[in-house]
Amino acid sequence: MKQYVFQFDENRATPETIILLGNKGAHLAEMTSIGLPVPPGFTISTEACVKYYDAGKKWPMHLKEQVRSAIGETETRTGKRFGDSANPLLVSVRSGSYVSMPGMMDTVLNLGLNDEVVKGFAKRTGNERGAYDSYRRFIQMFGDVVQKIDIARFEHELERIKETKGVEYDTDLDADDFKSLVRTYQRIVREETGKDFPADPQLQLELAISAVFESWNTPRAVSYRRINALRDDAGTGVNVQAMVFGNMGEDCGTGVSFTRNPSTGVKEHYGEYLMNAQGEDVVAGIRTPKPIDTLKEVMPGVYEELLKVYDLLERHYKDMQDFEFTIERGRLYLLQTRNGKRTAHAAVRIAVDMAREGLIDEKTAVMRVKPEDLDQLLHKQLDPVAKEEALDGGRLLAKGLPASPGAAVGEVVFSAERAHLLAQEKRRVILVRTETSPEDIEGMHAAQGILTSRGGMTSHAAVVARGMGTCCVAGCGDIAVDERRGVLVARRKGGEKVTVKAGDFITLDGSTGEVIRGKIPTVDPELSGDFGTLMGWADSHRRLKVRTNADTPHDAEVARGFGAEGIGLCRTEHMFFEGERIKAVREMILAGSVDERKKALGKLLPYQREDFEGIFTAMDGLPVTIRLLDPPLHEFLPQEEKDIAELAREMDVPVETLRRKIGELQETNPMLGHRGCRLAITYPEVCEMQTRAIMEAACAQHEAGVTVHPEIMIPLVGHVNEIKVLKEIVTKVADLVIGETGIKVAYRIGTMIEVPRGAITADKVAEEAEFFSFGTNDLTQMTYGFSRDDVGKFVPEYVEKKILPVDPFQVLDQEGVGELVRIAVEKGRRTRKDLKIGICGEHGGEPASVGFCHGAGLDYVSCSPFRVPIARLAAAQAALKEKEEEKGKRR
Amino acid sequence: MKQYVFQFDENRATPETIILLGNKGAHLAEMTSIGLPVPPGFTISTEACVKYYDAGKKWPMHLKEQVRSAIGETETRTGKRFGDSANPLLVSVRSGSYVSMPGMMDTVLNLGLNDEVVKGFAKRTGNERGAYDSYRRFIQMFGDVVQKIDIARFEHELERIKETKGVEYDTDLDADDFKSLVRTYQRIVREETGKDFPADPQLQLELAISAVFESWNTPRAVSYRRINALRDDAGTGVNVQAMVFGNMGEDCGTGVSFTRNPSTGVKEHYGEYLMNAQGEDVVAGIRTPKPIDTLKEVMPGVYEELLKVYDLLERHYKDMQDFEFTIERGRLYLLQTRNGKRTAHAAVRIAVDMAREGLIDEKTAVMRVKPEDLDQLLHKQLDPVAKEEALDGGRLLAKGLPASPGAAVGEVVFSAERAHLLAQEKRRVILVRTETSPEDIEGMHAAQGILTSRGGMTSHAAVVARGMGTCCVAGCGDIAVDERRGVLVARRKGGEKVTVKAGDFITLDGSTGEVIRGKIPTVDPELSGDFGTLMGWADSHRRLKVRTNADTPHDAEVARGFGAEGIGLCRTEHMFFEGERIKAVREMILAGSVDERKKALGKLLPYQREDFEGIFTAMDGLPVTIRLLDPPLHEFLPQEEKDIAELAREMDVPVETLRRKIGELQETNPMLGHRGCRLAITYPEVCEMQTRAIMEAACAQHEAGVTVHPEIMIPLVGHVNEIKVLKEIVTKVADLVIGETGIKVAYRIGTMIEVPRGAITADKVAEEAEFFSFGTNDLTQMTYGFSRDDVGKFVPEYVEKKILPVDPFQVLDQEGVGELVRIAVEKGRRTRKDLKIGICGEHGGEPASVGFCHGAGLDYVSCSPFRVPIARLAAAQAALKEKEEEKGKRR
Repeated sequence: MKQYVFQFDENRATPETIILLGNKGAHLAEMTSIGLPVPPGFTISTEACVKYYDAGKKWPMHLKEQVRSAIGETETRTGKRFGDSANPLLVSVRSGSYVSMPGMMDTVLNLGLNDEVVKGFAKRTGNERGAYDSYRRFIQMFGDVVQKIDIARFEHELERIKETKGVEYDTDLDADDFKSLVRTYQRIVREETGKDFPADPQLQLELAISAVFESWNTPRAVSYRRINALRDDAGTGVNVQAMVFGNMGEDCGTGVSFTRNPSTGVKEHYGEYLMNAQGEDVVAGIRTPKPIDTLKEVMPGVYEELLKVYDLLERHYKDMQDFEFTIERGRLYLLQTRNGKRTAHAAVRIAVDMAREGLIDEKTAVMRVKPEDLDQLLHKQLDPVAKEEALDGGRLLAKGLPASPGAAVGEVVFSAERAHLLAQEKRRVILVRTETSPEDIEGMHAAQGILTSRGGMTSHAAVVARGMGTCCVAGCGDIAVDERRGVLVARRKGGEKVTVKAGDFITLDGSTGEVIRGKIPTVDPELSGDFGTLMGWADSHRRLKVRTNADTPHDAEVARGFGAEGIGLCRTEHMFFEGERIKAVREMILAGSVDERKKALGKLLPYQREDFEGIFTAMDGLPVTIRLLDPPLHEFLPQEEKDIAELAREMDVPVETLRRKIGELQETNPMLGHRGCRLAITYPEVCEMQTRAIMEAACAQHEAGVTVHPEIMIPLVGHVNEIKVLKEIVTKVADLVIGETGIKVAYRIGTMIEVPRGAITADKVAEEAEFFSFGTNDLTQMTYGFSRDDVGKFVPEYVEKKILPVDPFQVLDQEGVGELVRIAVEKGRRTRKDLKIGICGEHGGEPASVGFCHGAGLDYVSCSPFRVPIARLAAAQAALKEKEEEKGKRR
Repeated sequence: MKQYVFQFDENRATPETIILLGNKGAHLAEMTSIGLPVPPGFTISTEACVKYYDAGKKWPMHLKEQVRSAIGETETRTGKRFGDSANPLLVSVRSGSYVSMPGMMDTVLNLGLNDEVVKGFAKRTGNERGAYDSYRRFIQMFGDVVQKIDIARFEHELERIKETKGVEYDTDLDADDFKSLVRTYQRIVREETGKDFPADPQLQLELAISAVFESWNTPRAVSYRRINALRDDAGTGVNVQAMVFGNMGEDCGTGVSFTRNPSTGVKEHYGEYLMNAQGEDVVAGIRTPKPIDTLKEVMPGVYEELLKVYDLLERHYKDMQDFEFTIERGRLYLLQTRNGKRTAHAAVRIAVDMAREGLIDEKTAVMRVKPEDLDQLLHKQLDPVAKEEALDGGRLLAKGLPASPGAAVGEVVFSAERAHLLAQEKRRVILVRTETSPEDIEGMHAAQGILTSRGGMTSHAAVVARGMGTCCVAGCGDIAVDERRGVLVARRKGGEKVTVKAGDFITLDGSTGEVIRGKIPTVDPELSGDFGTLMGWADSHRRLKVRTNADTPHDAEVARGFGAEGIGLCRTEHMFFEGERIKAVREMILAGSVDERKKALGKLLPYQREDFEGIFTAMDGLPVTIRLLDPPLHEFLPQEEKDIAELAREMDVPVETLRRKIGELQETNPMLGHRGCRLAITYPEVCEMQTRAIMEAACAQHEAGVTVHPEIMIPLVGHVNEIKVLKEIVTKVADLVIGETGIKVAYRIGTMIEVPRGAITADKVAEEAEFFSFGTNDLTQMTYGFSRDDVGKFVPEYVEKKILPVDPFQVLDQEGVGELVRIAVEKGRRTRKDLKIGICGEHGGEPASVGFCHGAGLDYVSCSPFRVPIARLAAAQAALKEKEEEKGKRR
């Protein structure tokens, strides 16, 4: 006889039983089998469901008798009887397929009640109201799921009785109300079905099982499977389980518990419970639950049992568990257990502790922490209690994009100059702008946090702030910034407007995007010993190197502190904006002749050299990749009439000349315009000056005992001839400097791969380039044809409509952009076997993208300093996953 | 004994003899061997040159005796003697390697003269002045090439003697002057070499041969070989040939001739000659040469011989030949023959005639005409004589880019409205603008020609004009257009300014870019029977279909006349600008709600439907690909304050609202912004209206008996989900229309591949797309990261510096963009075997790019109407070349 029905203790959770019993059934089996006190019950296999359909919606042979016998077994194990009004067995009947399809299929609870049984149930629980409430719920659920009666009919009656009594909530109804409601419901069933509500529990059960079978093919279930590409022929299992009640008296109760503290990670018993209550009561917060430890005195036996459960759960699941329990007449039951949610802090501690305890190995510990979560550990956070109070107090002004994590408190300023000024007086400021521009760099550096009303997650403000590790809330459309008047106006939910003036204090939460009025205390980041231990383990497993994107000695030092193994991208243009330099840059741009241009560049040379000296020192012994000037020149000139006039005065040129020059530099699509290596080809003097600054700095630092590894990176190469021409210039100047100083410093010349053509013709480009660095920001822009500055108009809609699974500027698009990366790696290495390849776009610090880079065979990723630990962990996880998969294949 | 020296009649031109004797030597051998009267001589092999270098610049064994014996043979054949003052043999000594390296190596002429010989030479020619001029030229050439004397020394003396005599030209010097010059030159040689100028002709010859060997390794020759990747170890041949003189008396002469008329292609003897003259005299135009036919009477014997030469040349070379001849004492000599240059007209006629004569086969005839040259045949041309007179008369105003071929004469207008207005009065106008915009379409249509002062070969004016077949000169930087005042000011060479007012007549030559004052008569295109014959032959060989890019019924008809086999790209946006439509378009853009938008779209529907009806009719039986709305919406709104104010009044909305809306639509990089399918996803109503218009038109025309094949094309797809979503909408509406009308019209839905990601993920995109059409304009922009609107700043420099071989917007970049095309074709067909694939970018009408499309396995190319014949011919040539190569491989 084919077995369709399995007691929970007959199986374990394996890939095979998950197919046979469904996911829920298999896990109930697992819990039961390892000795956890799970209420008894059984699972009808998915096979039975498939047979049911095959046979034109008929039960397969022998199923009915197997169910009957299984119910008998459940009666034996619970000591209760189905349909027995003295000590009734009530059961739940739940669906469950091989993959969880939450809410898509049907469930019936409290099955086994009828007019007789309910009386016994009321007596035994001492809770007549509760018993009849359960009964009317059962009829309603059964009527809906099994008998397909419009649920509105039942709800309408419930509303009516409340109206009649003049009350608002269900809780205001008493036992008699529910008794009356039961009668009404039974009448509805009669009217709708032409028959009495079935009183026979056995019949109830069989009808409910059929109904669960049928729910496999409800339109919403079918469409869910289509969307998620699930098998249509798998069928659902049916789980029939004894109901337990924590509200049957003072020897009953219910609670939730964690095997370790989910907030701190400390190994202690954490949780709370309520006596004589049901699960909902704990959540509803009507009574205050008690801490789990106090159960020791109240029910020492149950407490002893609970201790064993903690131990059993962790030994078995090898992770911190979050479980629900019910105590029915002094007996402990577990209804569910799952891996517990935890803070980043706790995640690290638990992983390290469990490895030390020998529960898991180091590799598993490394896999246990989500790389993204490390962000929380590396930045200041708002004190959670104080923040909650502030929000409860209505101090939330608006919510923007969580553009750069951390927390910041300070007085509002509306200009970069003012931010810089106040910061020098040691005042803490928040820089508030419509959007930021490269000219604001100094002010952004000086600010505790940055708030903009426009721009997305990859706007200037967001990118720069993440690079600096400064908290930033961007694109906060609910505030209007009036920089001239020095006020911001927040439109709060409901339309109320709140005005904040310069000098007022606000608080930013860069991890959530919240903007809050006034000050909130912050908590400093604490890179505990456990963090260091875990990162050490991670480092021992990863293959990818992790470098950082840093433009200043300070950023380089911070990143090195976070474990950066070199600089993957040093943008030289950011250096051009500070103080006196911007003047020389503008002179260079406005130069009427090559000689004038060279003169202006001569002024910039010492600044650049100094920057590079500091960076080489900070990265002593590690490689430093410096990118030559990249942005279009118009970015260095003012656009506002007022500023143009001022600059004209300053530079002593006619306003008209300046305006014309600025006009000439305007471009229709600056992203695809005169920038990157194209600038260096038109103005080789700039490339010469930068090379000289790099090499003079390298030689000087080498002489001073620093180990330098300069790598000169030529941006935006699409054709090998571009790098060929520029490599000649760079080599000429570099060798000249080496000749002049007599100090032999080795250097490499490479390119960014950020133009699709560069990737497609990587075999040619590699004839000249000694290294590649994927600039995936621009590569994504050009591969998609998406301007990062303009996608705000449609990419959010694309993601919402699921046209794109995710914003490709956040997570590397492995199918499209990634294919270009794979092509470039393959073609590049075909030409030059030892080609060094990295990535320096924003994706270099995004865990999924780091995983992709590992798989694509890159040598390193480079990301902003504060994302270095995230990338290290993600790289380790990618390496471990790969090993695991290889093992899997070998098996 | 190794043979180093070969008489001309010992060999033929074969790949082997070209290596052995050099290209020139082999062709002299060929001409001699087929019986053409070539002055006798011999070639010293390249092997001898290689041996010379191998031996440390020493002559190989036996070379000297072989040269002596060869000179003896030449003496015998000419009946002249080397060094004999009575009847001297003079020779030329010329270099010639396996590939022609024009001007890179050395030559000595008139070798064999000395103080004695020159006297005899003077006597024999009866031209003392000429003899001494030849002698002094010989000394100068020999001094320069062989003796390495600074040529400036000789030239200085020549200047001096002219100064002394107070004359300006060499021709003003007489025999005595040259005698004196010879003595001075001989003195210079003595001073520089310490020896007398060598008088022994044999020694002269040996020294000259060595000097030619040495010229293989001059720096300029070495660098030429490096640049052109030629072999360094090939060596040069040395050609020693008897000099012949056409100026030895009245039984002498010289001339040039073509075997057919190079202007008309007619098979007639064409050319001219001068009696008692040298080659230079014909070119110099001192005397007027006579037509070749008159030779019949002057020298009937020579004329008879010439007739045989014509015949021999064409039978042997199987192409029209252009040759130089000299008659020395009644004997005819051919000095050189080559395939003659010819007009497009002649090229077609000659190819067809020769095929008919059986000289060549049809395939060869098809290969004989350059596709680009057809352009001349399809457009009006300026009468060449009248044009030359105009230019001689100083009427050239300026020169711009030859943006669209043809010629145009008309009165100047400065606005599209005015152009439209005057054209309705049947007046012929030239539209002159700084640059054109989509709003000018109607005026551009009305004009005979278009002139802009800004924009490149792919500017709006250029692209649209080429599409219409209207003559256009673009980017004419030497004219300043003042549209407000209604004048243009041309800055002519030398700085003179000429002002042209509205109403003045000007003439444009779109094939050269010339802008000329006043009127010049034009010649109409004449698609002669030969043209049709040749195109018929071409069509029978090509595999690629040729469609056209056409947006109006008129363009479609024109293109069909040129042989278009359907429409590959019908841009719907151009239809939006005409008359009342633009109002509805603007209402649609400014709509505050979906309902308002639908209302505005409702007004557009009948216009669109009408357009499509006309186009379907014009293309009865052929496929018509219609692209849904593509450009960003801001293109439909005015940008100037004045126009904004006017529109606000017209639309009855506050100026501020309109300005804000326009501001919202501004983009940083519109090329990568909210356009193409992205618009249709945000505003599905637009897609619905356009689909309805297409399908209603298709159904109506089908009902009227027209065979319609609508293909609906979704632009700018980068992700399969984009086309998936829109295909659902298009299908829904199309099927709705079919349901409503009850007329079943089959339609296809496909996409443009113009975003790199679309190409890379073509396997996915092809799951939804039934056809691909490569939009190589945008694909080039994104693959290179070049904005077509901005590359003017650096791409010309790139081409000049050879960083790019050619502007990739003109000729498809096969290495980069082409690789994406290959990937997309391969991946697309992997998913959908019968995927129809075409190209509709500007490259679709460029011959090299058409060749690439053939090789890449595309089904069709689509180009502007006037380029259809070019594409047909290019496609045929590509197919023939492929077959030839396959044959080559099989051998």
